[in-house]
Amino acid sequence: MSVAVHGVGTSMFGKQRELSASELVWLAVDEALRDAELTEVDAVYLGTVFGAPGVAQRSLHALGLVDLPVVAVENACASGTTAYHEAYQAVQLGRYERVLAVGVEHLTSVFSGAIVPEPSDVEGRSGLALPALYALAASRYADVHGVGDEDLAQVSVKNHGHSVANPRAAHRDPVSVEEVLTSRPVADPLTLLQCASISDGAAAAVLAPATGAVGEVTIESSELRSGKAWDHRSDRVWGFDIVERTARASFEAAGVAPSDIDVWEMHDAFTIGEIVTTEAVGLAAEGEGARLLRSGQTRLGGARPVNPSGGLLSRGHPLGATGLAQIAEVCWQLRGEAGGRQVDGARLGAVETMGGGVAGIDGNACVVTVLSA
Amino acid sequence: MSVAVHGVGTSMFGKQRELSASELVWLAVDEALRDAELTEVDAVYLGTVFGAPGVAQRSLHALGLVDLPVVAVENACASGTTAYHEAYQAVQLGRYERVLAVGVEHLTSVFSGAIVPEPSDVEGRSGLALPALYALAASRYADVHGVGDEDLAQVSVKNHGHSVANPRAAHRDPVSVEEVLTSRPVADPLTLLQCASISDGAAAAVLAPATGAVGEVTIESSELRSGKAWDHRSDRVWGFDIVERTARASFEAAGVAPSDIDVWEMHDAFTIGEIVTTEAVGLAAEGEGARLLRSGQTRLGGARPVNPSGGLLSRGHPLGATGLAQIAEVCWQLRGEAGGRQVDGARLGAVETMGGGVAGIDGNACVVTVLSA
Repeated sequence: MSVAVHGVGTSMFGKQRELSASELVWLAVDEALRDAELTEVDAVYLGTVFGAPGVAQRSLHALGLVDLPVVAVENACASGTTAYHEAYQAVQLGRYERVLAVGVEHLTSVFSGAIVPEPSDVEGRSGLALPALYALAASRYADVHGVGDEDLAQVSVKNHGHSVANPRAAHRDPVSVEEVLTSRPVADPLTLLQCASISDGAAAAVLAPATGAVGEVTIESSELRSGKAWDHRSDRVWGFDIVERTARASFEAAGVAPSDIDVWEMHDAFTIGEIVTTEAVGLAAEGEGARLLRSGQTRLGGARPVNPSGGLLSRGHPLGATGLAQIAEVCWQLRGEAGGRQVDGARLGAVETMGGGVAGIDGNACVVTVLSA
Repeated sequence: MSVAVHGVGTSMFGKQRELSASELVWLAVDEALRDAELTEVDAVYLGTVFGAPGVAQRSLHALGLVDLPVVAVENACASGTTAYHEAYQAVQLGRYERVLAVGVEHLTSVFSGAIVPEPSDVEGRSGLALPALYALAASRYADVHGVGDEDLAQVSVKNHGHSVANPRAAHRDPVSVEEVLTSRPVADPLTLLQCASISDGAAAAVLAPATGAVGEVTIESSELRSGKAWDHRSDRVWGFDIVERTARASFEAAGVAPSDIDVWEMHDAFTIGEIVTTEAVGLAAEGEGARLLRSGQTRLGGARPVNPSGGLLSRGHPLGATGLAQIAEVCWQLRGEAGGRQVDGARLGAVETMGGGVAGIDGNACVVTVLSA
């Protein structure tokens, strides 16, 4: 069955200590339901990483969304797109008709200061938290492919430039290469402005069978993979392989080529992430991601715009909400409703979300979906 | 498509500080895969409430279960049966062929002493944690239906009597009514021996299409519901309604009556829970649950044995693992492999799991499934 996204919604993104996780969910879901012109759904998948147990039911109750199957899902940074993927599969297989996918994270109430590794997280306790993992990838990538700190910084400059036109982004000021490179070091070579910030937010999408209406956003494919064993001696940096596998499967299912995509939202939790991902999804040959970036093609106005929303680097990264914020952005783009950051005439969009990384595998989860209008 | 449980496995249950969550998962999954005579599966659903983000991938990697869709799910105490329910639906709809459902909780590494309410948990912070919620239900129930503390205690006596023959249970000593009633008060009228204990454990099941082999455990139905708005002035105690709705739907789908069931595993996190649940699922008329218990019918050897494993009260209650431990017990019973706690000639079994409770709704989630052999 052909499945469409009938409505999307998000809260504002950024540090929002004055709102609870439930209040963020209400804002996102209310907007998505109005957008879909629905007042009820048949099932709910809610993605969150650090949300309190029961946050789904606690939040949905006040919206009158009760007495239906509700499942909270966790897949690290891909939790939101995992909720979307499960919703998509459920509608496609005729399990439910109208499914709400929602993602939420209220990081400022869970963490003060650094995120402390879980007791069972051996790598985290030894310092190999995600910024360090991406930093090692960046160092290796720079060494193998000969790119410099300025190339990394250009991802941040591009995406912060985009978010100037995104009223819901956490960070809306443009930044220069110099500002990026001289911002506080986090994990060498990554500086503060090369890392997505601690944020609070929620995002939602309502999925249901496609009606065939003109301009409707239809899901062409969605794929979810978990990591494979990864050899740290590989010349390929960590994360490349899982993204490549998932993207290839998703594009094959959709019957389109990566170069056909008019607008991308991809996982730039750290600057190196976007460079590697443009290669892994097939926009650039391996090692050519920085060159693609320098060419201007991935900027708004270029041939292959990536992260017109500002991406995770500028919108902020409330983990469980991120994937559905990416979905919302691509839907707005395909409907021509993206305002000052609109990609002219976008008809085919793609979202890629990469989640986590634990010892020995190339990522906890990756979701790649292709949408059209 | 008809779906069967091809293999089940569990770790030991109880306080196991010396093992990690991953080690518990390995024990349960290894046993389940051997039981199913499989070395790989096509997808995994892992249920956990307080498990660290990524615990699924971190644990599965060492078992070689990589490069497939893995989704962690949370639905309070019904997280394990939610994983099972999602696995069942996926096989039934032809989404995947062989799906592993696994549940895990390592409570002793997450909590020391009392479980502190989450900052967003307004009821918990005001003292209305689950023991208090069940205690209020017990008081109301006692008042409306005229049952005494001894009736409540008899649930604990029965289930601790059963677990004497369960080598994996946390608590294997029989207890007397007096011991139950004089154990430490937790939330009046519930005493320590009327509350499931903090435990560590994991349990797993492998689901795949039924082959039609003699003795195969087939899933006749599985239903998942979340709570409805609940009026605290209702004469029905909290939790009754969601269990009744879910059970009714599941028995209707299976085409059997509650009285047809040979063996039950149900959610006795607190003694009052089992009494109310026997009514809500249709084993006793409303208000007659204590009478059913006193009749001896729900004891091993009775006509309607409930919780031959010892239930949550005696096996222990590692939240995410509980639902799949219930599934494992019913499978062993239907295959005639339950040793000293075997229900003779059991051919039809049912599992009920009740998860959580937040303000204003009658439960976060409930799963009821009917199995046959």
